[in-house]
Amino acid sequence: MAQANSRRVDPAALRKRCRNGSWDQPTSGLAPGYAQANMVILDQRYAFDFLLFCQRNPKPCPILEVLEPGQTEPRRTAPRADITRDLPRYRIWIHGKPDREVTDIHSLFNADLVTFLLGCSFSFEEALIQAGVPVRNIEENKNVSMYTTNIRCDPAGPFSSRLVVTMRPIPDPLVPRAVQITSRYASVHGAPIHIGNPMVLGIKNLDRPDFGDPVTVKKGETPVFWACGVTSTLAALSAKPDLCITHAPGHMFVTDVPNETLAVI
Amino acid sequence: MAQANSRRVDPAALRKRCRNGSWDQPTSGLAPGYAQANMVILDQRYAFDFLLFCQRNPKPCPILEVLEPGQTEPRRTAPRADITRDLPRYRIWIHGKPDREVTDIHSLFNADLVTFLLGCSFSFEEALIQAGVPVRNIEENKNVSMYTTNIRCDPAGPFSSRLVVTMRPIPDPLVPRAVQITSRYASVHGAPIHIGNPMVLGIKNLDRPDFGDPVTVKKGETPVFWACGVTSTLAALSAKPDLCITHAPGHMFVTDVPNETLAVI
Repeated sequence: MAQANSRRVDPAALRKRCRNGSWDQPTSGLAPGYAQANMVILDQRYAFDFLLFCQRNPKPCPILEVLEPGQTEPRRTAPRADITRDLPRYRIWIHGKPDREVTDIHSLFNADLVTFLLGCSFSFEEALIQAGVPVRNIEENKNVSMYTTNIRCDPAGPFSSRLVVTMRPIPDPLVPRAVQITSRYASVHGAPIHIGNPMVLGIKNLDRPDFGDPVTVKKGETPVFWACGVTSTLAALSAKPDLCITHAPGHMFVTDVPNETLAVI
Repeated sequence: MAQANSRRVDPAALRKRCRNGSWDQPTSGLAPGYAQANMVILDQRYAFDFLLFCQRNPKPCPILEVLEPGQTEPRRTAPRADITRDLPRYRIWIHGKPDREVTDIHSLFNADLVTFLLGCSFSFEEALIQAGVPVRNIEENKNVSMYTTNIRCDPAGPFSSRLVVTMRPIPDPLVPRAVQITSRYASVHGAPIHIGNPMVLGIKNLDRPDFGDPVTVKKGETPVFWACGVTSTLAALSAKPDLCITHAPGHMFVTDVPNETLAVI
């Protein structure tokens, strides 16, 4: 399957390719215009505390949908989809450690598992580009740069994490515009959490991200930092659950939710 | 205690009066500038489903803070306060039916109870008035008019409810301004859910609200409808829990959160 073709497919067609095994690659840039989601699956005994963690930390962990125990159809964000088959790749974590990656979790799923779908910054990257604000990681065809900061999230029950952020270098005159645009998208991380000096967040070297790739920061650009959904994975693992299932990094769940419907104003 | 004096007190002083028994009246207009909250207390076996109900219905049920089981200090919205003593009046519900009202629930509280604090439209009423948009229920010194609509909330587990709305008549030229202002306050019900014809919501007679008082709708004014926190009480009772504790109507929990900090942009 040529990647050029897949970029134009709609969400349902892309999910079908995931389900029948013909797409197991990252989803960045695919099904443009539709929200993609981080996924965390935990046993229901963790469900209240994890939902509370997300409620207390809405910038890194904006909830798009929570499925009740045993449910596999996200009927609010992607009716008729199946979260056990429709992601290109999953990561299985045992006692908080990565165990393996698979392309289907149908046989692993059971009636006690609760699925959390969380917003992803792909949605606001599209809005930035449409407004003429360049997004360096897309220009350079790299994964966005991610850093673990010195900011502690507000814990809930056994869940805690440092805040993970993404960084995008923004031309100085466009920084206010970047704040305005992303402020509209509270359910996909919203406004930046910091603008400027990385040291304020405890980030010593922008060239050495904790996750993803480094990108070029040009003269006349300011690093701008947004809360990142990777925080939700770190928080889920902090409780060292027997079993946790997430999307594999970059291999998101593609919903039927148009990005523009997420804008608050 | 003269009411005129109490209006000027800060939240901590008002809560102290509730605690020592010298204030058991409604809180409308008191401690201006600070957010007041609806309260729902349920056993922890309901906690995930009720939090999920609120997550799925954020306009009527905007969460300000959730306390973990047995906790009585809302340290995010009112550090050092005690939700078992610091509201002027509580309503106790047994199997979903009103049982009695009390001014203290300290002896009733236990380690299994989870407290939910939800935003209240008092916050945006203040913003409307400051922007020159009249608020009729305040002008007429009445409770806001509330109606049960034909809109079903998105259920979660045993919790379901029709959407309850408040109605404020707004001078026609100011309706767009009222939408703009309340849109800023997503955590206290946010933008209206309907503007104009009450029949669209299944409301047959504005003069006969289901809760609160009728107010005058003048020529040249349009009825504007916002989601209402009473929905959270109806939803909690829909599960017919052995015990549910809420604020008594109009007797809200007064937080230390400045209304202006709730504005999203």
